[in-house]
Amino acid sequence: MGKKKDVSIKDIAAHCGISVATVSRVLNNKGNYTPETRDKVLRAVDSLNYSVTQAPHHIHRTKLIGILVPDAQNEWFSVLIVHLETAFGKKGYRCLICHTNHEKSAELELCHYLIDAGICGLINIACTTSDIITLTAANNIPMVCIDRPPSDSLDQVACVESDHFLGAFIATELLIKRGCNRILFLGRFKESPINEPRLNGYLAALKQYGKPEASELIVNLQMDEYPNFSSTKNMVYYLIKSSVKFDGIFAVNDWRAFGALAALQMADIQIPNEVKLIGFDDVSLTRFCTPAISTIHQDDRLIAQTAADILLDAIEQCKLPDPCHIVIPIAIVERGTT
Amino acid sequence: MGKKKDVSIKDIAAHCGISVATVSRVLNNKGNYTPETRDKVLRAVDSLNYSVTQAPHHIHRTKLIGILVPDAQNEWFSVLIVHLETAFGKKGYRCLICHTNHEKSAELELCHYLIDAGICGLINIACTTSDIITLTAANNIPMVCIDRPPSDSLDQVACVESDHFLGAFIATELLIKRGCNRILFLGRFKESPINEPRLNGYLAALKQYGKPEASELIVNLQMDEYPNFSSTKNMVYYLIKSSVKFDGIFAVNDWRAFGALAALQMADIQIPNEVKLIGFDDVSLTRFCTPAISTIHQDDRLIAQTAADILLDAIEQCKLPDPCHIVIPIAIVERGTT
Repeated sequence: MGKKKDVSIKDIAAHCGISVATVSRVLNNKGNYTPETRDKVLRAVDSLNYSVTQAPHHIHRTKLIGILVPDAQNEWFSVLIVHLETAFGKKGYRCLICHTNHEKSAELELCHYLIDAGICGLINIACTTSDIITLTAANNIPMVCIDRPPSDSLDQVACVESDHFLGAFIATELLIKRGCNRILFLGRFKESPINEPRLNGYLAALKQYGKPEASELIVNLQMDEYPNFSSTKNMVYYLIKSSVKFDGIFAVNDWRAFGALAALQMADIQIPNEVKLIGFDDVSLTRFCTPAISTIHQDDRLIAQTAADILLDAIEQCKLPDPCHIVIPIAIVERGTT
Repeated sequence: MGKKKDVSIKDIAAHCGISVATVSRVLNNKGNYTPETRDKVLRAVDSLNYSVTQAPHHIHRTKLIGILVPDAQNEWFSVLIVHLETAFGKKGYRCLICHTNHEKSAELELCHYLIDAGICGLINIACTTSDIITLTAANNIPMVCIDRPPSDSLDQVACVESDHFLGAFIATELLIKRGCNRILFLGRFKESPINEPRLNGYLAALKQYGKPEASELIVNLQMDEYPNFSSTKNMVYYLIKSSVKFDGIFAVNDWRAFGALAALQMADIQIPNEVKLIGFDDVSLTRFCTPAISTIHQDDRLIAQTAADILLDAIEQCKLPDPCHIVIPIAIVERGTT
């Protein structure tokens, strides 16, 4: 942000001994140049003190990462953000963060803002629309998804996620091994990319162990509030008071598990004797409530580092990352509710 | 982001019937024009489809708010962010969020990035350097602080905060009324703007009730990790095992209170019979741990809405907000530790 001199794009080209068109491609992040050329141009921009108001602002892309994330309150996401900022910070990158609230229109609009802000790469957590893939590719912005993008675009992107299917499978399996026969599935609204593999893992475990699959035991709650505590509590209390019978609950996240725990306690149902319960994510409340809640631990640090490595590699190579689908192992954490 | 036509700043000026210089001032957010002129120019930019690559990117400022916040993991901050996004969202504004980690250099660098990204206003939570005030003013970006800025700049900014002093006073007073004579103060690193008023509130209550002020009872812990649980637990356990005697603890935030609770329980000290404990912030864990922790509740929603109103008003009027210091009332929440 020093004083600006009257340096033109031609001066940059002359200084580097390359064409104006190449300098322009670098400044606009358009590709078709070597990493060496890019470094040369960016060093010339610095040393000649090329004016930022003259330059396309994409020049700032060098050290700025955009992060799209559904919300600020979900501890699982905020821990992920901290690990991402640490991973990028080690390489001198700063992060701009936008909350999409799981809304496609917000995701697109905020992605436009981030591109205009000059990001050189994007981490998209819980991507809900393939339009983002088109938008970032058109702007030559490398993107890495954390959690699966929409199924029609899975083979087009780099994506890192926990093994949601296996997590749900072993959670359900644990309930079965502890004696449960009728297991309630507490899912979330359909737009979330992780609901489907967690539902499939639950169904696969039921099938493998010959347990009945019943439509009245699969309950998907809309996210009408955060953290879904009260709506889940009310729904589970309603189910208890209705004719729906269950002796186990698998909740797709810990706040739903916590809501279910509150409903069971309100109805004087003994946990884990009468009903067993397991959540997903291993957020801190599962350790602090009474009884502490069994859950599936996601390796947030490894997910963040893996996604950051792929993105930084693509930025370094001035290309979009190759499509890939990296699945990070999960671990079961058994506590007082199973 | 539609197709761009070859429209120049002169066309905008002609369309509006004003000078090119005025159009330029509006596009660069330089002030010295009426809100009507600004609206006219921005409407012309839209209707003529003035190219974004031609325009200074500050043109995007109209609907983008920057938020500087220390970190993503502290629930108090993330709830504040949600309320801020709601308040700004109601008026059609989106938010770009950056985490400063309480570091001055990060705060300044990220503020530069946000200005370059085209924000039209800034919310600065727990501001640590008055340089930000200079930087935003020089760029005609209105700023509102949540929590007090450095004391040398308090009369220069608009700032909204909880009544930290009174919160600490009534927390300490409650411990005294419940019979405590030697109250441990668990504070935080000095850079935090809220430590001083909370310490002063604690000291004022001791003085008013004639309780001894002792240097060995004032413990400020560096933030070497988040959420300060383990370092606080270790420190309090160390104090218990040393010759330092206390029968009450006031922690400047709930995670420190929670760490203290764990240390007391590890040392088999009865709570609240032998030692009483109160925190600050009213984050969710205080309700879920056993015993539930008494704390001071900050009105996060009112703080966010007040700060947003001041900032939106300044943006609307194309001026920096008048310096002001708005103090939002707090409330005591008594639970099982007092």
